[in-house]
Amino acid sequence: MSGLRILAIPGSLRRASFNRGLLVAAQETLSGRAEVELFSLADIPLYNDDVRLEGYPEPVAQLRGAIERADALLVGATEYNFGPSGVLKNAIDWASRPPGPPLAGKPYGLVGASTGGFGTVRAQLVLRQILYMHALGYPASLHISGAAKLFDEEGRLTDEETRRSLSDFLDGFLAFLARVGAGK
Amino acid sequence: MSGLRILAIPGSLRRASFNRGLLVAAQETLSGRAEVELFSLADIPLYNDDVRLEGYPEPVAQLRGAIERADALLVGATEYNFGPSGVLKNAIDWASRPPGPPLAGKPYGLVGASTGGFGTVRAQLVLRQILYMHALGYPASLHISGAAKLFDEEGRLTDEETRRSLSDFLDGFLAFLARVGAGK
Amino acid sequence: MSGLRILAIPGSLRRASFNRGLLVAAQETLSGRAEVELFSLADIPLYNDDVRLEGYPEPVAQLRGAIERADALLVGATEYNFGPSGVLKNAIDWASRPPGPPLAGKPYGLVGASTGGFGTVRAQLVLRQILYMHALGYPASLHISGAAKLFDEEGRLTDEETRRSLSDFLDGFLAFLARVGAGK
Amino acid sequence: MSGLRILAIPGSLRRASFNRGLLVAAQETLSGRAEVELFSLADIPLYNDDVRLEGYPEPVAQLRGAIERADALLVGATEYNFGPSGVLKNAIDWASRPPGPPLAGKPYGLVGASTGGFGTVRAQLVLRQILYMHALGYPASLHISGAAKLFDEEGRLTDEETRRSLSDFLDGFLAFLARVGAGK
Repeated sequence: MSGLRILAIPGSLRRASFNRGLLVAAQETLSGRAEVELFSLADIPLYNDDVRLEGYPEPVAQLRGAIERADALLVGATEYNFGPSGVLKNAIDWASRPPGPPLAGKPYGLVGASTGGFGTVRAQLVLRQILYMHALGYPASLHISGAAKLFDEEGRLTDEETRRSLSDFLDGFLAFLARVGAGK
Repeated sequence: MSGLRILAIPGSLRRASFNRGLLVAAQETLSGRAEVELFSLADIPLYNDDVRLEGYPEPVAQLRGAIERADALLVGATEYNFGPSGVLKNAIDWASRPPGPPLAGKPYGLVGASTGGFGTVRAQLVLRQILYMHALGYPASLHISGAAKLFDEEGRLTDEETRRSLSDFLDGFLAFLARVGAGK
Repeated sequence: MSGLRILAIPGSLRRASFNRGLLVAAQETLSGRAEVELFSLADIPLYNDDVRLEGYPEPVAQLRGAIERADALLVGATEYNFGPSGVLKNAIDWASRPPGPPLAGKPYGLVGASTGGFGTVRAQLVLRQILYMHALGYPASLHISGAAKLFDEEGRLTDEETRRSLSDFLDGFLAFLARVGAGK
Repeated sequence: MSGLRILAIPGSLRRASFNRGLLVAAQETLSGRAEVELFSLADIPLYNDDVRLEGYPEPVAQLRGAIERADALLVGATEYNFGPSGVLKNAIDWASRPPGPPLAGKPYGLVGASTGGFGTVRAQLVLRQILYMHALGYPASLHISGAAKLFDEEGRLTDEETRRSLSDFLDGFLAFLARVGAGK
């Protein structure tokens, strides 16, 4: 056990979310090689700079602390309207403010699943643009199209080929984390 | 009075928001030529597809109704982290779902103000990408940089030159709305 | 015959280019409803501002004239490396300079075909960003994935279902052109 | 002398290009710490896949070889029309093909200068999207606005404050290159 800590953040609040399911599968796949914590964004309020100046609300403070403690982030890049979900963008807005900010220099990887045919290609492109000044992106992505047939009704990844793709992606991600010295 | 109805949506919840102030100034500038309604996103919950399937929450239903009734949208493109605020993106996520959706074919214009030097250039680019399949963008933008010196502490636009730029932008916007038949 | 003139520009120089083939199919589909001229970018030199100041090279002058005379553009959005081809971007760089520029206010539509699974989604997003200050985009797109099976070795579109999708797209495009007054 | 080799590529062909001047200044600044070679894109032909299959043209082979030998790239991100110049994109299109491709895993940094007020913000965002699957981006950027006053008529950087910003950027870039093991 390397002691590598990865914070996994799904961009969707849906109970049986494919992107949440993908991160749960990543947690299972990395078992013994990294500790993967899932963080739900359900309690994060809408960003308001007046509120921030009075002090971070408790759920936001928890998100920021979890990012700070993590060696790396794994983001489930839910795509709505050709971009990352507002839910996810809103969390990034909170996590990018001082002090710190927690995102600074943090290595991250992107995975995404969608029912349609284009995976989460467009959400991930926008996320690259949004994160690049803060964080250090793994230069590879995982896109799962046609997710409805690959996950069960609880949002659990059931397709073996997709699990293998995920496993390959995670091998590359861990190699990238080693290259940039994450967890050292 | 043409009867043209414009819905103005600021992307920030800050009380003295520059982008809200810019939209208030647009409301004043267009007085007698269009009816401009301001809509605050403060009460819109985080998007959750499970919730949507049970029925749109009341504040979301109000947003969707206001968009539907409007002939055009004027968006205050608050920029956080090189993209539109999560607050704004979250509202678009709600407004882009069936039935309708309310955004379909709706003409829109983008304005934005920021304290930094790059206006809201990057937020507006991402908004173009996000909105293009739904709505019809006015091919011009207004970017106000160095906003802290142009607005007062209440977020009211006090700079005369900026008001003239805004007025020019709005003249072009109304001409665009006429070209695409808005309000007909 | 409406007299509507559409300039069709493929982003690829390959002899049997899928994007060229798609535009040829559009030409056939629109026969009797619009005059579609294909323009090859093969002779356009690399953009050099020193050269521009001495006068547009002949192939560039021809491109600019063809855009000016056209009522609308139909672009074959060849995707390389998650963006429009350098060939296409280079042509836009020449076409966006004064006098005029020829692109100003010009309505355009985007179509694209690729061998891979993501159509030309990413190229088209970048093209929207690049063109929006000049031109007026049709808010819909056509993406053809898995093109190798839909076109023959000469780059001719042979798949009937794709032809129907193209035909539907072009019906919408002509309605959009009417809405914005193209050719009036 | 570390023996670190950096290939510097300006996106503009203009003789007195600001972006070329910025890279020349980087070459001077890094003297003794890295060997910076400038590469002009003037002789690179338009990308044509039929030509590629017959063999890379000589200027392209030289570009690919230079990238391969370099430990890192420093790109002068000339911005035309809200994106990287077609000249630069065209070079990336040649450099991203097999064998290799030379860009694979290559660390890079972005700098840019423009006469207008927005530096090369938009070109750099698009370059991030284009390069991310191939190469490893330094998560910081340098944007020089209002360049006409900072460079002389030969395109030489004359402004001392800009030189200091460049020097700071390059210090961070070298630290990043060390972090990712460039030149090892």
